[in-house]
Parts: sequence; C-alpha cells; structure tokens
Amino acid sequence: MVDIARLNTTQGDFWSRLKQRLTWEGVADEAVMATVGEILQGIRSRGDGALLEYTQRFDRLEVAAVAELEIPLSRLQTALAAIPREQREALEAAAERITAYHRHQKQESWSYTEPDGTVLGQQVNPLDRVGLYVPGGKATYPSSVLMNALPAKVAGVSELIMVVPTPRGEVNDLVLAAAAVAGVDRVFAMGGAQAVAALAFGTESIPRVDKIVGPGNIYVAAAKRMVFGQVGIDMIAGPSEILVLCDGKTDPEWIAMDLFSQAEHDEDAQAILLSTDDAFLDKVVEAMARLLPTLERHEVIATSLNSRGILIEAQNMDQALEVVNFIAPEHLELSVEDPQAWVPRVRHAGAIFMGRYTAEALGDYCAGPNHVLPTSQTARFSSPLGVYDFQKRSSLIQCSPQGGQTLGQVASVLARGEGLTAHARSAEYRLKR
Amino acid sequence: MVDIARLNTTQGDFWSRLKQRLTWEGVADEAVMATVGEILQGIRSRGDGALLEYTQRFDRLEVAAVAELEIPLSRLQTALAAIPREQREALEAAAERITAYHRHQKQESWSYTEPDGTVLGQQVNPLDRVGLYVPGGKATYPSSVLMNALPAKVAGVSELIMVVPTPRGEVNDLVLAAAAVAGVDRVFAMGGAQAVAALAFGTESIPRVDKIVGPGNIYVAAAKRMVFGQVGIDMIAGPSEILVLCDGKTDPEWIAMDLFSQAEHDEDAQAILLSTDDAFLDKVVEAMARLLPTLERHEVIATSLNSRGILIEAQNMDQALEVVNFIAPEHLELSVEDPQAWVPRVRHAGAIFMGRYTAEALGDYCAGPNHVLPTSQTARFSSPLGVYDFQKRSSLIQCSPQGGQTLGQVASVLARGEGLTAHARSAEYRLKR
Repeated sequence: MVDIARLNTTQGDFWSRLKQRLTWEGVADEAVMATVGEILQGIRSRGDGALLEYTQRFDRLEVAAVAELEIPLSRLQTALAAIPREQREALEAAAERITAYHRHQKQESWSYTEPDGTVLGQQVNPLDRVGLYVPGGKATYPSSVLMNALPAKVAGVSELIMVVPTPRGEVNDLVLAAAAVAGVDRVFAMGGAQAVAALAFGTESIPRVDKIVGPGNIYVAAAKRMVFGQVGIDMIAGPSEILVLCDGKTDPEWIAMDLFSQAEHDEDAQAILLSTDDAFLDKVVEAMARLLPTLERHEVIATSLNSRGILIEAQNMDQALEVVNFIAPEHLELSVEDPQAWVPRVRHAGAIFMGRYTAEALGDYCAGPNHVLPTSQTARFSSPLGVYDFQKRSSLIQCSPQGGQTLGQVASVLARGEGLTAHARSAEYRLKR
Repeated sequence: MVDIARLNTTQGDFWSRLKQRLTWEGVADEAVMATVGEILQGIRSRGDGALLEYTQRFDRLEVAAVAELEIPLSRLQTALAAIPREQREALEAAAERITAYHRHQKQESWSYTEPDGTVLGQQVNPLDRVGLYVPGGKATYPSSVLMNALPAKVAGVSELIMVVPTPRGEVNDLVLAAAAVAGVDRVFAMGGAQAVAALAFGTESIPRVDKIVGPGNIYVAAAKRMVFGQVGIDMIAGPSEILVLCDGKTDPEWIAMDLFSQAEHDEDAQAILLSTDDAFLDKVVEAMARLLPTLERHEVIATSLNSRGILIEAQNMDQALEVVNFIAPEHLELSVEDPQAWVPRVRHAGAIFMGRYTAEALGDYCAGPNHVLPTSQTARFSSPLGVYDFQKRSSLIQCSPQGGQTLGQVASVLARGEGLTAHARSAEYRLKR
C-alpha cells in the first residue's frame, strides 16, 4: 500500500514540515568512525599485509599476495565478450554518448598579456592517477562505472585504477564489461575502508592515487571523509532523490513510474511530486496503486514512498519554483508545457530533465550527462561529476621588468601594512633603483 | 643562524629523505575534535544563545544579542576613510587587478542540440550565499579578504557574509577597509568553531550559507571538516610553501629574500631552493646569513628554515622537474632564463611565478591571480581558489520525442541488466507503441 505524505504550500507550517521531511542524517556513528580509523591506520602502517588481512576478514577472500587481487585486463575483455550482444551494444552506445557530452566540459589553459608585457593565466592539467570505487553486492551498477570512469578518461587522466570488492570471489560480468568499455587501466578485487585507504596512502602493491571517486556504503563514505586532504574525493552522496514538477498534463502513469524508478533504488530514496493541479496528484496516486503490484521491487518502493515520499500542491508556478529551489533536488523533472521557459528560474538542482519525454531514467543511463549528482540539498553548492573534477589548474604569472615596477610598489605597501617586511623587500628588489 | 638541510638528487636515499622532509601532519587531535564537536552541537541545537556564550567564553566579548555582533557597513567605510591614502590606493589597485583576472574564470552556461532535437548542456549559477572566515589576531590579512571575497563577487554571489573574531572588541581597520573595497555584504564579530557552525547551520540571527571559505586555526579547520557536506568548504590549508627553481643566474639576494618571504609567515612554513648549480646554493646561503639579521621577523624565519627548509641540488633540468612534480608546491618560482619553455612540463603546482622579476610577493598581493592555493602536495588534485568555486552547474536534458525512442531502448536494456525494472518501464513508456 502506498500512503504518501501530502503537503500544501498554503499550510501555515508548510516550510517546517517540508524541511523536516527532507532531513537526512547520514552521518556515520562513532563505532563506524573508530573501526574505519583503525583500518586506515592499519593500511598506512602495514600496507599490503594489512590489506590482505582485512580482505580476508571482510570479503572472505584469502590470497597470498596483493598481486593476486589484481583482475587482469584480459578478464575484462572476456566479460565483455561473454555478456549478451544487446547489453554490450547498449553499454557501448551509452559510453559513446557520455563521452561526447563530457568532451564539452573539458577546460583549456588560458593566458593573456597586459600592455606592459606581463603575462597572466592558468595552466590546466589532468590528474595523474585516479581511484574508482565500485561497490560489490546488490548495488553493483555497470552504469556507475561508465559515469565515473569516462569523465576521467576525457580529462586525460593517465591511470585509472578501479577497486571492487568480490565477496567470496564473486565478480559481476556486467561491471567488468563496463570497465572494459570505459578503458579502466587496472582493477583490484578489494573494497571497504581498506580499499579507500590503500588508494589514498598507497601500499607496496597498490599505487597511491590523487583522487578517489565512486559510491560506497557507510564505511567507504567515512573512509573517504577521513582521507580527504591526503587525496581528493568526490561528494559523499546521500540517498538518491527526484522532484517531479508537473503541470498536470502528463500521463499520470508516466509520472507514477518516474517516481517509482527513484523509489526502487532503496528504502531511503526520496520521490517527490509537486503540482499546481490538486486533482492530478490524486490521479498519480491512483496510478501508483494500480501499478505498484506489477513491479519486482514493490516492497522497497512502498517503504521508500511511505517513509520519505511527498506530494506537494502549490498554488501557482511561482510558489512551485520557490519549493524547487528550497529542495535543491538531485533530479528535477520539469514535466510541463514549455520547460525551457522555467529553467532560468531554477537556481539549485543537480540535473534538470525537461519536458514530458525526458524520463530521469534516460539520464541515469545514456543521455550523456553524468548521473553522479549532488544529493541532500548539496546542489546549493556543488555540481554534477564532470571532466572538471579530473582537471586542476596552476596559476601563471610572468611579470615583465616594467610590470614588476608597478606591482612591486603596490605589493610593498600592502606587505608593510601586514607587517610582512620580507615580502615587501622581496618585491622592492625588483624595483629599479 | 640559518642551517638548512641540503639534499642532492644523486643520493641513494634522496627521495625518501625528501618525502620525510615534506611530511606535514596537520590533523587535529581527538581533544580538538571533541571540543569542536560540542560547539557544533551547541550552535545547532541552541542557536543564538550558544553563539553568545561561546563568543563570551573564547573572545571575551559580552553582548546581549547576536545583532550587536554585527558590524555595520558604515563602520567599514569609516575604516576605509581612516587608513592612510597610500594603503587605500594600494587596496583599490589590488582589488581592481584581482577582479580583472578573475573575470577570465567565469563559467557560462552551455548547451547543444542534437540532430533529432534533443538538447543537452549545463546551466551555471552562482551560489546564493557565502561565508568568509577571516582570522583575528596576529594573522589578520587584508589581502586575504580581497582574495576570498572578490572571486565570489565576480561569480555573482548575492550575499557575502564575513565573520572575524574581535577578541575583547579589538578590530583591525585595514581588514575592515579591505571588506569595504571587496563589497562584503554583512560582517559579524565572531570567530572560532562557533562562527563556522553558525554559518553552516544558521541561527535565529545568522543566515545559513551555502559555502564557507577562508583560513583559520586548528579549531576552525576542524569545524570546516565536520560541516563539510552541510555546506561547501574550500580546501583545508596546511602551512604555506615555496619552491624556487633557479638556474643560478638570478641575484642570490633576490632569491634569499624570496625564501625569507615564505619563511616569515610562521615557523611551519616551508621554503625550498632547487638548483642545477651547486655553487649558487652556497651563494644564496651566504646572502641569507648576511640579510637575516636585518629582518624584523628573523626569529620566525630562522626557525622555519632550520626545521623545514631544504636546499636541493639537481644534476640537470630533467631531474629538477621531476623534483618539482613530486613536491607539487603551493608556490613555484621558475627563476630561469626561458621560463615559458619549462611550464608545460610542470604538472603540479598551485601557482607558477615565471622569470626573475616575478617575486612570489607580487602574486600574494596584487598581480591578479588568487593567493589561496593548494598546499601540502594537494596541487596534485586541486586548484587555486577561483570564480569556479562560487559557481555550480545543473545538467540540462531535454529529449525530443524521437530522441526518447533511441535513448529509451538503450536505457531499458541497461536498467533491466541492473535489475531496476521501474527505471526500464519509465523509459519504455516514452517509446511509441
């Protein structure tokens, strides 16, 4: 049974009720932090030896040396050859579109020369080596391999190292096939906080990386938070969310299924429907009741919708957009007549799916844009994973002798104002005497 | 007395000695973490009341209401009018150059239309509200206000809230004047972990921000790390560093003073000189011995150089560049004949100062590029603070009815491969039947 909380913007306590319903406390507790802290310390001080121990303990996988955990690239090709042709072609089609889209994000070095000959700019370089965490078990998604690996490849990262836990040696052929299609350079069968630590610090057999990306459980997330600074990390994701804003003129079954597609991820996923048409909300609820029993993951969906789903009625589009910007959703579907007209008023959203034909699912797999998106209102300040996450910049400054004169005088005054006289004198040396 | 560690790339243990000398453990200990955790919890649950208590306890500043902690913008203008004209003009000249440079970093929205009418792209928006932490006490730098505030302003951030502790009510006119020049929107006299928490969570009187930037002590850094995810943060900075690569043909006194200008920041600052000319290293050491006694901050400089400074002799430029990329310095001075020729081979550096006239001090204040740069080898994966740190992106996807056909088929295959049938059916609805 689906029984979703319903709010109306005219309610006096609307905003506080909405805020409460959005709240998500995903913080790891002290026990998790302590365990992860220990694992990090173990890998840091004992390297390969600790890695083998943890892999045996947590993944029930016993090998004599870390080298045995490496999955050869030939095994990836075998997986690619083994999966059904239809799946192979779908992976390749998705990879091609994702690559094409992400090429538009590549940043180039730039510089300009001032009249006195001083040159300023930024040099843009790819990261040298990136680690890609891929979860094992039930949430093993080949699409996630493509979405995390391909932007790094487009950026020009020279070495992309994937880690994936293989409990009791079980591997997922679709995931290995996706790694083959994405051009991953090395793969190790390891996971958990120990894999994050090995990538962050390096061991005798695992090279240290410069950034770690990819989703993981609470231990992986805690480990990433702790190694942040030693290496770069992507955002630490909360549960996935969708907000559908519909004018009431899309087929209610389409909208019901779009909400289901979010809710089926897991019990904590959040699906929200916002409409200026009260009667449409009822129609979607009816469609849900009808369709739910036909879905394989109906239990997960029902739990998600009943515990975290929301139906919101707004009086008009102005109100609706205020709600959108407050929620700052990971996925926003604008299932309305002229979506382009409203997009400029959306200030916060991970991805905006415009129009009745743009189901979120298309973006999840193959439209081109990344499906790694800011969750839990972090779209207020962060962006989809992109090529820019695998590039970094160095400022370029070349003062001409004349430029050194002008700048030296200003720098000297400010440095002396701050009491930093070595700074001042270093600048003053470049002044002509 | 200056007695700096000296290394030579021909030494068998060169890399391990270099690595050891670079190591910096800036992690907050458990006592700091516990204190900060408590303060965060206090602000989160008791808002203004807790903020007043902590401000009284840590800053010895007692007021009846948080509103009294607000420093009015008129007070900033008073400060700007009160400082010497030379300083005012220097601040304005620096602000103008910093603004001009950062305009080059502004990212624009983009999109493209595919042959079947499908539109893909990204919408770029500024953050709504940003918090700028400015330290009080000895390390209060007006230049830091300009460097943190101006990129946010160029990005189009509509509200920039500065916090600065004013122990016992002491304020720094130069800092307030810089805030006036930078166009900061509101200023509160508060600091420490409690200020970070107030900005991250919001209180009755302090609006919640979307990102917090700016340097601070170990409590501020720990607080930023803990609220990361609730709000965006900039990198957590370690001690400042410079690596000067010199071909031996720059005046040794200039180089000595450049190294001093780094070392005078604090005892943990790191100054490194790398040269292919062994005799030049000696000349710089002689110049240092001569110049050190003439400097106000000679004690700090001597401690910094003796504990963390390094002189490195390389056999040739290839080796020297290998050392540069290993160190991934915050500041790199290429004090060589044709610096432009070597820049493409620098893969990791926060900022590259090219040529004999480009003292780092010029970049610290007024050349234009940002002085907030990645430290402690984080230039391997991060960039100077920039306009891009105050903008974020939303993916744009609008499938045409025809595009929905092609994409729907690929998405359906992949979703079914992942066992996500609601995803598959959501895509399949858009297929023409």
